[in-house]
Amino acid sequence: MDERGPRGRGDSGLTDVAGVRVGHATLTGEGRLTGTTVVLAPEGGAVAAVDVRGGGPGTKETDALDPRTVAQRIDAIVLTGGSAYGLDAAAGVMAWLEEHARGFRVGPDPSHVVPVVPAACIFDLGRGGDFRARPDAATGRAAVEAAAASRPGSPVPTGCVGAGTGAVVGGLKGGIGTASTMLGSGITVAALVVVNAAGSALDPATGVLYGEYFAGRRVRYPEPEVHEAALDKVSAPLATRSRPPLNTTLAVVATDAALTRAQAQKLAGTSHDGIARAVRPVHLMHDGDTVFALVTGAHPLTPPDQRRKGRPQAESREATEAAAAGVLNEILAAGADQVTRAIVGAVRAAESVRGAGGTFPSYRELYGSG
Amino acid sequence: MDERGPRGRGDSGLTDVAGVRVGHATLTGEGRLTGTTVVLAPEGGAVAAVDVRGGGPGTKETDALDPRTVAQRIDAIVLTGGSAYGLDAAAGVMAWLEEHARGFRVGPDPSHVVPVVPAACIFDLGRGGDFRARPDAATGRAAVEAAAASRPGSPVPTGCVGAGTGAVVGGLKGGIGTASTMLGSGITVAALVVVNAAGSALDPATGVLYGEYFAGRRVRYPEPEVHEAALDKVSAPLATRSRPPLNTTLAVVATDAALTRAQAQKLAGTSHDGIARAVRPVHLMHDGDTVFALVTGAHPLTPPDQRRKGRPQAESREATEAAAAGVLNEILAAGADQVTRAIVGAVRAAESVRGAGGTFPSYRELYGSG
Repeated sequence: MDERGPRGRGDSGLTDVAGVRVGHATLTGEGRLTGTTVVLAPEGGAVAAVDVRGGGPGTKETDALDPRTVAQRIDAIVLTGGSAYGLDAAAGVMAWLEEHARGFRVGPDPSHVVPVVPAACIFDLGRGGDFRARPDAATGRAAVEAAAASRPGSPVPTGCVGAGTGAVVGGLKGGIGTASTMLGSGITVAALVVVNAAGSALDPATGVLYGEYFAGRRVRYPEPEVHEAALDKVSAPLATRSRPPLNTTLAVVATDAALTRAQAQKLAGTSHDGIARAVRPVHLMHDGDTVFALVTGAHPLTPPDQRRKGRPQAESREATEAAAAGVLNEILAAGADQVTRAIVGAVRAAESVRGAGGTFPSYRELYGSG
Repeated sequence: MDERGPRGRGDSGLTDVAGVRVGHATLTGEGRLTGTTVVLAPEGGAVAAVDVRGGGPGTKETDALDPRTVAQRIDAIVLTGGSAYGLDAAAGVMAWLEEHARGFRVGPDPSHVVPVVPAACIFDLGRGGDFRARPDAATGRAAVEAAAASRPGSPVPTGCVGAGTGAVVGGLKGGIGTASTMLGSGITVAALVVVNAAGSALDPATGVLYGEYFAGRRVRYPEPEVHEAALDKVSAPLATRSRPPLNTTLAVVATDAALTRAQAQKLAGTSHDGIARAVRPVHLMHDGDTVFALVTGAHPLTPPDQRRKGRPQAESREATEAAAAGVLNEILAAGADQVTRAIVGAVRAAESVRGAGGTFPSYRELYGSG
């Protein structure tokens, strides 16, 4: 397994899935600390699915991703700050797609389209100081234009950008992270996350990022005095809160495997395991945790030679199905793993913010970048 | 937080939730390596829910646990070996419950009941040597009778018993585990698991049980030579398998909190996070991972004094709801944590099996019990 990412080690992250583009629009200053991130599918769209597992979700057009619904492909996914208000950003993405005649065709003219633009939000209201400073349609348009203008396969900017601008995770500054891997079959699986969880990405007992327990090596524990000093800074804001914070981890898991819509939904579901390993607790009543799957479909699950053997038809079909299920299992496992790695990358990439809306120290400030 | 369990450290596990009883029926010898475990609710039944997240589930009466359905309470949950054949064990539990006039009342006489007995199975066919040796109604009856005969609060036997008799997890012997905790509010949350996952409970890079990364302390890494010797024994059977194994982790998460059926379903869902942290990968196409929630309801979510303050009605209601959501969050987090601890306990309690169906080394044999 060629483990690319998280960003900073030379990989591109989500854009390693051919044709997938990412654009950020970042709003800071004048009381703002928020933004929008758009994942743009290749021309012609991509199969998509969603699994919402948080108890406080804020989403738009997710019902249209049920595998039983009519639109088979979508053109863009919006992740945004601004809580449910910020879902307005999708309007700007819809407008841009309509101008480019991309969407579900509903009339005689190619321009007669309704784009299905699923969107999910994080809660970041007031983090820049102004409770009313939120992404709107113009922010969404800026993000999709940035995505469209990006070079294919170019690295996705991470940390405090786009929808991750105002993100906070358990007292630490959160943000955007991304990671990708290529399986032995040549299939690429990648993840992009916005880490804004109510739970902690940091093991309070040791100072290790939970997700790093799954990195396939012994962890390096921070020095006890470093960890103790860090805990003082992270715990204080948590202790003074009068009610549980509204928070959320959002993810887009993309692959070039030819998954059906139902298989894509399974991928969205198992990818939540990657959040569970990197954030604890998670999926609570005050989390809106939502994972989208985006499937470009270039790679069939079963290589052609598997389908052409001279066996009796039933046996051959069974062998093909077993092989496909095995490859699907690898994709499912990789989806969760890339989400875990992307979350670690997001927390490591984030930078401290001190502003009118509060002080949010970064992991790097507290523990260094070792 | 009073962290009881996993078993072996003096706690009782699932039976720490007052009124909940557990019984095992274990089938070994003559080609058998399987069994059934019954969780028996207190007289009068308990609220229950389920979340099925595996791609290869084997279940019975799970649709009747949807919060919109008619039966508000159930009397027993069956976990069983024998794959889908083993679901027959539930028939013996139904018969026993009918004899005791326990179940959903459907006629004028108190004995006119239909017990709703949700059941889920693990795949263990052939592990004792005989592919056709499976639990049946008599096995289910033996397990429910053992549960009914048990002393209230008595420790739940763990390891290779009941439904865990034939369990295997990623090449290691699996089994039954249990753990419990009491929250600051006095609410108890406990878990019982049958660990039979296709994925691994063991970090192959380090030899640490994944779940122990979440134990709130630095892990003790096994000596490299111990780990290397262990990997040789665990990996061999995996490499020779012609197709992905069918496996499953099952759990019952019980609490004495007064959850609604919908809240119980949320608890069943978030408890899957506890599996994700202890087993990797998980929820694949060949896992039947299923979590039941069982709610006895003695403790209201909000203490009475919270509900009697002299505030305006709307503000008071909002404060009560916020407090209840906070307590629910603690229960959700604890459910996942107790599942993780129960899985660690199951793997640590299991004993090696060498028989006609194969060799399944235990963690204890390979790594010791340190």
